[in-house]
Amino acid sequence: MATKKRARKSAKAKAPKKTSKPRPRKAECHHVPWSAVPIEPLNPYLDRHFIVGTNIMVARVLMKKGCIVPLHKHLNEQFTYILEGALKFWIDGQEIVVRAGEVLTIPSNMPHKAEALEDTIDLDVFNPPRKDWIDKTDQYLRGQK
Amino acid sequence: MATKKRARKSAKAKAPKKTSKPRPRKAECHHVPWSAVPIEPLNPYLDRHFIVGTNIMVARVLMKKGCIVPLHKHLNEQFTYILEGALKFWIDGQEIVVRAGEVLTIPSNMPHKAEALEDTIDLDVFNPPRKDWIDKTDQYLRGQK
Repeated sequence: MATKKRARKSAKAKAPKKTSKPRPRKAECHHVPWSAVPIEPLNPYLDRHFIVGTNIMVARVLMKKGCIVPLHKHLNEQFTYILEGALKFWIDGQEIVVRAGEVLTIPSNMPHKAEALEDTIDLDVFNPPRKDWIDKTDQYLRGQK
Repeated sequence: MATKKRARKSAKAKAPKKTSKPRPRKAECHHVPWSAVPIEPLNPYLDRHFIVGTNIMVARVLMKKGCIVPLHKHLNEQFTYILEGALKFWIDGQEIVVRAGEVLTIPSNMPHKAEALEDTIDLDVFNPPRKDWIDKTDQYLRGQK
């Protein structure tokens, strides 16, 4: 009997959390060093990692000179802050070079294309978070130059 | 008849846009070097400037060592990304030191206090934009240490 009890207890301890009656999750703060966030290589010119909140996503996008981000658009509002290097954008009928220390604000659903003029570290902010990046369905970036 | 037509066309071309029936404003992209955004001194320890979009605000907060951001909370979700220096936070019953290259995600309405352990450059991301910062009604930061 005791053995049975222990066995049951042990099994319960190992069991995954019940999902049938989920409690509302308490919002938590998270302390995240970028060095602890795995970097995903998307193509030979572009690596990326990101941190996702409730309505905010922040990504570090690491591009080699010559990297092309093909023309695309998305519902998500975007701020692109260049930390190092330079990106040339084709957007809203203009060509805009965004250099280190500069920001480009991109409204929801505005098509844009970009090219890295130098090796570049780009901090991208999105609202809401990019579902296609989280789900890895962002084919426009995968396997391309 | 032909002259009349030309005159009408010309007048139409020169006329200012009607303002009585405003069209919905087209969303625009904005290229903003941080160096072009005036820095506002809030207190002897804290200067700040920010860029506002539709649902995103990004701020560079420049703090001297010893700067205290008093305990406060806000509806806005916040990501704090330390670019240089270090901030100590009191948040959710914890003390957390966030250093250069690290991010703290702060959910909506979670009270937090901070102290600059070094001269610090802090990039804050908010959703939605901070109305109290835009309106300059953020008394908790003005005139304090």
